[in-house]
Amino acid sequence: MDINGLLTSTGINIGLCVGLFSLYSVLRKQPSNVNVYFGRRLASRRLRHVDILERFVPSPTWVKKAWETTQDDILTIGGLDAVAFSRMLVFSIRMFSVATVICFVLVLPVNYHGRERLYKNIPLESLEAFTIENVKQGSRWLWAHCLALYIITITACTLLYFEYRHLTDLRLIHIIGPAPNPSQFAILVRGIPWSQESTYCDTVKKFFSYYYESTYLSHQMVYNSGVVQKLKVLHAFKFCRLFSIIYFRDNAKHMCKVLSRSMTRCGHGFSHCCFCGGFKNSIDFAMRYNDIETDSRKESGTAFVYFKTRYAAYVAAQNLQTSHPMLWVTDLAPEPNDVYWSNLCIPYRQIWLRRISTFGAAVTFMIVFIIPVTFAQGLTQLDKLEKMFPFLTRVLTQKFMNQLVTGYLPSVILVLFLLAVPPVMMLLSTMEGHISRSIRKKSACLKVLFFTIWNVFFVNVFAGSVISQLSVFASVSELPAQLAKAVPVQATYFTTYVLSSGWASLACEIMQVCPLFYNLFRRYILRSKDDSEEGTLTFPYHTEVPRVLLFGFLGFTCSILAPLILPFLLFYFSLAYLVYRNQILNVYVTKYDGGGKLWPIAHNSVIFSLIVSQIIALGVFGLKRSTVSSGFIIPLLIGTILFHIYCNQRFHPAFKNLATQVLIDMDRRDQHLGKMEEIYEQVHSFYCQFPTRSASSSERSAGSYRGMTSDHVSPAPETLDADNDGIDINIQRQRDMAWPLGDLV
Amino acid sequence: MDINGLLTSTGINIGLCVGLFSLYSVLRKQPSNVNVYFGRRLASRRLRHVDILERFVPSPTWVKKAWETTQDDILTIGGLDAVAFSRMLVFSIRMFSVATVICFVLVLPVNYHGRERLYKNIPLESLEAFTIENVKQGSRWLWAHCLALYIITITACTLLYFEYRHLTDLRLIHIIGPAPNPSQFAILVRGIPWSQESTYCDTVKKFFSYYYESTYLSHQMVYNSGVVQKLKVLHAFKFCRLFSIIYFRDNAKHMCKVLSRSMTRCGHGFSHCCFCGGFKNSIDFAMRYNDIETDSRKESGTAFVYFKTRYAAYVAAQNLQTSHPMLWVTDLAPEPNDVYWSNLCIPYRQIWLRRISTFGAAVTFMIVFIIPVTFAQGLTQLDKLEKMFPFLTRVLTQKFMNQLVTGYLPSVILVLFLLAVPPVMMLLSTMEGHISRSIRKKSACLKVLFFTIWNVFFVNVFAGSVISQLSVFASVSELPAQLAKAVPVQATYFTTYVLSSGWASLACEIMQVCPLFYNLFRRYILRSKDDSEEGTLTFPYHTEVPRVLLFGFLGFTCSILAPLILPFLLFYFSLAYLVYRNQILNVYVTKYDGGGKLWPIAHNSVIFSLIVSQIIALGVFGLKRSTVSSGFIIPLLIGTILFHIYCNQRFHPAFKNLATQVLIDMDRRDQHLGKMEEIYEQVHSFYCQFPTRSASSSERSAGSYRGMTSDHVSPAPETLDADNDGIDINIQRQRDMAWPLGDLV
Repeated sequence: MDINGLLTSTGINIGLCVGLFSLYSVLRKQPSNVNVYFGRRLASRRLRHVDILERFVPSPTWVKKAWETTQDDILTIGGLDAVAFSRMLVFSIRMFSVATVICFVLVLPVNYHGRERLYKNIPLESLEAFTIENVKQGSRWLWAHCLALYIITITACTLLYFEYRHLTDLRLIHIIGPAPNPSQFAILVRGIPWSQESTYCDTVKKFFSYYYESTYLSHQMVYNSGVVQKLKVLHAFKFCRLFSIIYFRDNAKHMCKVLSRSMTRCGHGFSHCCFCGGFKNSIDFAMRYNDIETDSRKESGTAFVYFKTRYAAYVAAQNLQTSHPMLWVTDLAPEPNDVYWSNLCIPYRQIWLRRISTFGAAVTFMIVFIIPVTFAQGLTQLDKLEKMFPFLTRVLTQKFMNQLVTGYLPSVILVLFLLAVPPVMMLLSTMEGHISRSIRKKSACLKVLFFTIWNVFFVNVFAGSVISQLSVFASVSELPAQLAKAVPVQATYFTTYVLSSGWASLACEIMQVCPLFYNLFRRYILRSKDDSEEGTLTFPYHTEVPRVLLFGFLGFTCSILAPLILPFLLFYFSLAYLVYRNQILNVYVTKYDGGGKLWPIAHNSVIFSLIVSQIIALGVFGLKRSTVSSGFIIPLLIGTILFHIYCNQRFHPAFKNLATQVLIDMDRRDQHLGKMEEIYEQVHSFYCQFPTRSASSSERSAGSYRGMTSDHVSPAPETLDADNDGIDINIQRQRDMAWPLGDLV
Repeated sequence: MDINGLLTSTGINIGLCVGLFSLYSVLRKQPSNVNVYFGRRLASRRLRHVDILERFVPSPTWVKKAWETTQDDILTIGGLDAVAFSRMLVFSIRMFSVATVICFVLVLPVNYHGRERLYKNIPLESLEAFTIENVKQGSRWLWAHCLALYIITITACTLLYFEYRHLTDLRLIHIIGPAPNPSQFAILVRGIPWSQESTYCDTVKKFFSYYYESTYLSHQMVYNSGVVQKLKVLHAFKFCRLFSIIYFRDNAKHMCKVLSRSMTRCGHGFSHCCFCGGFKNSIDFAMRYNDIETDSRKESGTAFVYFKTRYAAYVAAQNLQTSHPMLWVTDLAPEPNDVYWSNLCIPYRQIWLRRISTFGAAVTFMIVFIIPVTFAQGLTQLDKLEKMFPFLTRVLTQKFMNQLVTGYLPSVILVLFLLAVPPVMMLLSTMEGHISRSIRKKSACLKVLFFTIWNVFFVNVFAGSVISQLSVFASVSELPAQLAKAVPVQATYFTTYVLSSGWASLACEIMQVCPLFYNLFRRYILRSKDDSEEGTLTFPYHTEVPRVLLFGFLGFTCSILAPLILPFLLFYFSLAYLVYRNQILNVYVTKYDGGGKLWPIAHNSVIFSLIVSQIIALGVFGLKRSTVSSGFIIPLLIGTILFHIYCNQRFHPAFKNLATQVLIDMDRRDQHLGKMEEIYEQVHSFYCQFPTRSASSSERSAGSYRGMTSDHVSPAPETLDADNDGIDINIQRQRDMAWPLGDLV
């Protein structure tokens, strides 16, 4: 490919982007699409009417809004995870601005003038003339690359340090928060030992009131919620509705008695076992009565235990309770909406086996994914295809079909397979048995990240079969040289990848293609006017974080080898900054907060990118016989590793643990303000495994205690596991939506 | 080598062993050697007079005694580490008894009859005829090897499981202990932040009395103990001795006042700052007075903090104190004699750098060690030697010198270099900055283990230069085949290695060659009669554990390949069992207890051995083209890894953490018995950085609180860092020894 080609391709892509973004700016103003583009605002009901004339004029107002939004707004609306994600983009923009300047000043001229050549017209110059391939062996100018790598590494490390420190501070502020968060008073206990004499509930009470005498407050059992169980509950619900209508008036007093008796059976703790919504509703009364009378044996070996102070809860969560480490396993409780209820009932002794199996499955999936890739690649070779499927010969002789099959089908197949990756990884993460949605998403994010870097970078670099790739990795000592040979060759491909896949992904993201088409289909084909069944989306960190980090990885590894990739990357990150901010502001609902735990992933990924780029540089300088430059890379490599270890020591503990000082200060503050009693009352109705419809209102009020504004109050906590691929179906969707409204201009 | 040769060699070695052990049984009865062979008994002064006639008759009484000693005795005398070590030997004996039977029944006949051969006289048969080399390619009989490996793996895992469980129980009993251990009430705080306004002492007091209000008891600063510092203290001591003799009578009252004033400056906490011995002695009074008045600025950023309960101390030790993880770093305090004082003053922010540097140094040392090995190997080739050192040509032509240089010198050089390994590793572990001697020893043990397995096994298997070895490891996928080719060839060498080096090391161990010669030298050449300067030895776990585990490793890897090694190993382990028990009973003094933390090392080492042997089997079956057997190894490999992960989940936490249940039960027990006040009093005088001579008596009384019998009361805690290579010089050695005595018969 020559410069002209690249410029043409860029032009087409820019045109495409401008077109799509204009289309977006029109589509978002259509009332029929409001639940596609303003999901979050729908949830928080802040929509304003739009003039009919404005509706069909493309306007860049969304860009202005996204640009003007402050970090505090993002924090309030999207939580700390959104801020962490936005910081990744800010870091990338800063980093690649510096890298672009350095590489265009230092590296690019050296590359271009690397060989004496008949200067052609620059636009006709091959792109290879701008890569390190063009520099002669033993050239004295390789110090420029070495210096550029030094500057890039030092800039990256400096920025990383300040970002990590900033995120640590934000996390601290998030933990301290203005309003008390009752989930800080709760821990989750798994692996409660089964005894013949007493129920799990009694066992928990006995254990904690003995060993945490002064700080134990109460507890709440978790019930098995298998499919059969769910059906039973639903069945009971229906039965009781009937039952209560007929009998309730007469039997109310009797039931109250039985209920209170059964509650006192287990004392204080049991009185809160899954009674969240208050006892105002007669139907609930009946259902719960039925539940208690018949289902007392369905407790699982898991419970929430509440403590009188945050510090006590934290200490209890950290401790090894007994000398058998697989019994009484304690963890800090996630926020109510973050709890992944169906995983809570998994027996703890299975967890390690599940982790190992899913690890194995993920690795296998990652490696076996080469098969569809090679199949898709095979489609481009017609003769092979005809041999494999002789009956296709006649079809393939038609020119149109031929072009379709060889030019179009491979990409479609690949894209389809790639689309399947995040859901598969999410499924694997679900099977791992994480107790919270945010940790599950983080785990899926990591898996997708490994998958992407492996399949986009390494598979492309060492193009070929699985075996040849694995054999490259099997000979560790030859890796730098192999990479050094392969990466510059693939640099052009990566540049076009950023141009096409990167930019297009942003356009797709802002267009919300799938929800848009589904909405059109529903509205104009199914003629449905009911918006109540819409899904509201949570931010798909597990797909977007790996994508951004992958582009960062490509940027670092290609920077000194083929600097032409950098301006495209810089444009990508700038656009991404605006697009994702817009999405956080308008589209995605924040139901739970992972507490910025995505940042360490980004940090580690950048360090990994730096190390890979240094190893490649080592290989390249080796191939170019520049021993001095090679020698200078070694201290850089060691320095980067030391920096990483230092950051892990200095900042990572704050992302894993909570500090005594912080917790005790918070406890004292609340004690001083006399808030504790109020919090204790809230705690009991905070976690609700089987919410009834009437309970959702009390849930909402509980939301205001989570240190969030009413902006991201989350509706129903039990979402019937629809969060599997990032889509939480909000069954409590507001029906009384003011329509058509839009705070669009 | 043929069977005859092996038998001859065995005979010679058995003869040598019998001779040496007889010599030992005589030497140990000589009064002049009592401090070589009865160091521990000297320390505990339990010696009995021996008849002069008995003294020169070899007797096997020590074997009987070692055999009859129960595990409880070992626990009482040598602590949990000695029991863990003894369990390693018991495990090895059981394991290799089973392996010997299985391999002699299943594997050996298959190997021997592997090829049709003219049956020679068996004694003249080459040893290779008994290895797997003798089995033909594609033989149907390879299932025997596969089955044997299955049986060996399953036996090993079963035994490991029960041993780990047993050790976990013992550790629990050790922690609970009959007598309260005041060190359980203490934590060590490092990285105390420096402030201009107040001293470290005030800062500590302020922090802990605020955040651990209800449980904080008191604290004790650690002082910088550089060389200059030590000299100053000694100087002050001398000065004050003089000073006190002259002035003390008159100034006693004045000093008491000043002292108490300076104590109250810092409140309760400061009153215990390094005042351990009680204030009974006027000299101490004067010295400490001087210290306080002049040295108040020499506090380091480290302190011991005492709590009112064990649970509180443990929780404080586990917690992250502030959101800056490199300040206020807390750990459980080691036992007083286990504290490595000179490392306590290392600024905490250096520790991570020290760890990394020592890791790098250890790896470099491990790899670079090949240089003396190749140099020693080079000595066996005379022509090369003559080329390198032409002036030696005349010397080397003499037959005797020739034999000496080629036959003897290489081994001597190697042995000398190998002798340097444990001290070097111990030095590296010291530089790492561990706070306790037991952890330092454990760390050195790990380093020596890696070193030994690498240099004895892998260097021998892939004999040659560093480069060729590294390149073997660089191509991971070819490793099994490479090992499969190399190990059976080296099996004969390993057999003779067990025979010679293994058995001889035991003879050396029991003879205590170095101390014996030093004793003879001192007694008959220096004509010294003063026994007070003798060193008492602590058990050199860092040399003996790696040796035992190495032989286990050789046993597992060679078992199905060359089963002839097994009876020799079995004999080695049986002898080791007796010898080491004898040494624990008589020679080594137990000053501190590592709490059985050596067992996880042994466990991991056995698992590693199993996995290596399975990988080798995989390679061998691959080379022998027995795909079925190869296939059967894969599930075994996966099963072993799963077993390892399970054990790590199930047992390892009990070796890292203490359980809430255990700690609270202990606290309640002592509260119930009214022992707490007594313990609080003891706590203050428990840790003593600069003990005075008069303090040793109070130290001794403190020892009885450490859950040990008076049998291993340890004398002075400050041993001037002479423990570097496992030798703690006991400067408080008993002078009033009853002599000659011996509880020998």
